[in-house]
Amino acid sequence: MPLEWSGLSPELLLTLDRDGPRPLRAQLEDRLRDAIRDGRLDVGERLPSSRELARRLGLSRGLVQDAYAQLRAEGYLDSRVGAATSVAAGACPPPRAAPAPRTADQDAPRLLADFKAGVPDLASFPMADWLWATREAARAMPTAALDYGDPRGDAHLREVIAGYQRRVRAAAADPEHTVVCSGYAQGLVLVLRALAAAGIRTLAHEDPGAPVMTAAAAAHAGMRTVPVPVDEHGIDVGALAATGARAVLVTPAHQWPTGVVMAARRRLALVEWAARHDAYVIEDDYDAEFRYDREPVGAVQGLAADRVVAIGTVSKSLAPALRIGWLLCPPALAHRVAACKQLEDRGSPTLDQLALARLIESGRYDRHLRRMRALYAGRREALADALAAHAPRVGLSGLAAGFHAVAHLPADADEQAVVGAALARGVGLHGMSENSSVRALRPPRLVLGFGNVGERAITAGIASIGGLLA
Amino acid sequence: MPLEWSGLSPELLLTLDRDGPRPLRAQLEDRLRDAIRDGRLDVGERLPSSRELARRLGLSRGLVQDAYAQLRAEGYLDSRVGAATSVAAGACPPPRAAPAPRTADQDAPRLLADFKAGVPDLASFPMADWLWATREAARAMPTAALDYGDPRGDAHLREVIAGYQRRVRAAAADPEHTVVCSGYAQGLVLVLRALAAAGIRTLAHEDPGAPVMTAAAAAHAGMRTVPVPVDEHGIDVGALAATGARAVLVTPAHQWPTGVVMAARRRLALVEWAARHDAYVIEDDYDAEFRYDREPVGAVQGLAADRVVAIGTVSKSLAPALRIGWLLCPPALAHRVAACKQLEDRGSPTLDQLALARLIESGRYDRHLRRMRALYAGRREALADALAAHAPRVGLSGLAAGFHAVAHLPADADEQAVVGAALARGVGLHGMSENSSVRALRPPRLVLGFGNVGERAITAGIASIGGLLA
Repeated sequence: MPLEWSGLSPELLLTLDRDGPRPLRAQLEDRLRDAIRDGRLDVGERLPSSRELARRLGLSRGLVQDAYAQLRAEGYLDSRVGAATSVAAGACPPPRAAPAPRTADQDAPRLLADFKAGVPDLASFPMADWLWATREAARAMPTAALDYGDPRGDAHLREVIAGYQRRVRAAAADPEHTVVCSGYAQGLVLVLRALAAAGIRTLAHEDPGAPVMTAAAAAHAGMRTVPVPVDEHGIDVGALAATGARAVLVTPAHQWPTGVVMAARRRLALVEWAARHDAYVIEDDYDAEFRYDREPVGAVQGLAADRVVAIGTVSKSLAPALRIGWLLCPPALAHRVAACKQLEDRGSPTLDQLALARLIESGRYDRHLRRMRALYAGRREALADALAAHAPRVGLSGLAAGFHAVAHLPADADEQAVVGAALARGVGLHGMSENSSVRALRPPRLVLGFGNVGERAITAGIASIGGLLA
Repeated sequence: MPLEWSGLSPELLLTLDRDGPRPLRAQLEDRLRDAIRDGRLDVGERLPSSRELARRLGLSRGLVQDAYAQLRAEGYLDSRVGAATSVAAGACPPPRAAPAPRTADQDAPRLLADFKAGVPDLASFPMADWLWATREAARAMPTAALDYGDPRGDAHLREVIAGYQRRVRAAAADPEHTVVCSGYAQGLVLVLRALAAAGIRTLAHEDPGAPVMTAAAAAHAGMRTVPVPVDEHGIDVGALAATGARAVLVTPAHQWPTGVVMAARRRLALVEWAARHDAYVIEDDYDAEFRYDREPVGAVQGLAADRVVAIGTVSKSLAPALRIGWLLCPPALAHRVAACKQLEDRGSPTLDQLALARLIESGRYDRHLRRMRALYAGRREALADALAAHAPRVGLSGLAAGFHAVAHLPADADEQAVVGAALARGVGLHGMSENSSVRALRPPRLVLGFGNVGERAITAGIASIGGLLA
């Protein structure tokens, strides 16, 4: 049976549930707080005496007194001795809830195929292995590891990552200068803050590249950006030198978004540029795990560990939701990056770190990557086959690695028109110009992500838009 | 049988393991990279022809050619056509590893009892429950949740946190304005950046408080700090108003480090100050879960949700290593805080968030808190009993909540002398002055943390230093 009381304000109705799990006193406090917050009880308004309210609600007087005392301690009710209990000045109405900001994805229609890049095959995430690794890590974890830890990350994971990066990426990785972070975004901001603190205020980046996200991260860290063109061998190091910047962000293993693998001479020119100008190279090694035609080209970091910061992440190899990445730092920057990580968040979650270490050590991480390489190779082939069948004049490049490729449209095509027409047919496409500071980049190209699209969707999607590409 | 080759440089010895798990070609590449990096092969030095090296090592010529090609692609070897293979200019020696920065804990001697504050009982972490919640969350998690998510955090966890904070902390919490972060440190930096972006550049803080950590976080976010005295009712709001600051950081539930619970009048004065000066209150609700004498006093945020940012964390209720916290933001700041979180790290790890939601919903979180409340109540009693027995003239305050208390030394005592003498007896103590901008704060007091010290250690520790306190 609900207990009710209609107070001085006719609209104030206190309803308590005697059979509910929440104690009556807590319910009474909740109701009174709500009434004060939403203005049904006004500032200065007198409440009935505890005796009176207890009588009306059929509660003990002590219970009401306790509730009043609690609300006085919290500042909702006035606490002057002797006077009647009233609503305290300063107890404000709450803010009204604003509608949730809608994300692009929520508004997007269901597509036949969405060639969005940057997302791996989420359905292949090895959840059973991850849970196994978490359990194993928890079992072996000493109690002290539940405390705050080294801001650089768990020492064991740093050993494992450094070893893995030496073995698989030919990196000159050293656990002392490895910093675990929560993915590429945080890794970049940490490095940029460390560079800004060292007086470097301009960040050069590849164009095409990720100009908007890079500029936002740079501005957040107090830096400005300058674009540098990319050709078929990678970034133009001469143009880079001409900018006067002392930091550059590059994607040597598989240039985002052109798919070019940086040529050996460019790699050398880049590290020579860095040495000559006391500059730093930030190497975004984002999808280096996936190379189809040959062994992956090692990280540029391996050539000049004192000049290159390599940023790695499991967002492409496992899943973005894990939020784990790492930085291989030049010794001159490592301390600043670690200090920044300490200030930002006091280190990444430890159990997740230990689970990743276990996953790598157990060989299950490599097994997953082998599976994914085969999966993506199949999708890559499906994409090439579908384009050959339905748009044979459209060339495809950037297929050596990763899970996106570049389709070269006829010289007179209009990227945005093609993207719009494809969307009308239920296919999500993205023009190269979306990734450039140049508004209508020539020649016209599409960036086709095939990481999170099945082979059947690839084939059906390309079949339905083949005519638009010719 | 290891395969060996001594090259032109007499000290260059390439040793390959024919029976090891790593392919011979990868081993050869590793050895050559290492030799280049550590200077055993100098820039310009010629390598033997692939035929010659293959013969000496007993490998196929194709294998050596492949290894040379790989190292050329990576920039270690020179790639001029026709010329002999040589070490490329630009392939630098690696940095030398610096010794690891030692943490204070590593250098600390083993103590009989360490009354360090701020750490909960780590051995009580409910690991089985956490693993259960992780498994349950993984089972229910849709595939799409493995992608990047809402920077404010998972929508379900925000619902659960807002509901919990309404219920337990009497907060005016709304999931739309709740932002999941990685603990108090990140929460504070996110808020300070949002305030700095809104033109607020001075942060007032309680004194005693955490002046060093607060100043570091503020400086990192582009703000300066100003201390405001705390008395037995909480922060001095008159002194706060006199600073002209438009933001203040407070610990109303259990002031750090004095242990005072902010009085009702101060709570009201504080929100009135905020309303009058278009200012914001940052409420660090760090150990509000633990209150022994009565129901916890609700969050100040509940009084003025448009003026108070509440920061919560599981670092004290579960363990710091989880790195999960939350912000209840005023609507005017919520968007800026979320945008900042997006730039900082694109959101916290999703599976951890879902596990916490499951833990709370299942009632296991509350069950853990009940267990911990009983545990800390026992330690609190052991501390009071031990002091009564061994240093009866030393008063104890701040015991109403949390897991630290304040011991009041005789007026002429020297905090640092007591701390030093206790350390010599194997007991870790901390003076109140460590937490103040005033160097030798009067009266002399000790801050005694009992969160991560067992009852037996408390009793033994106080027994061994009782004489020092009198």
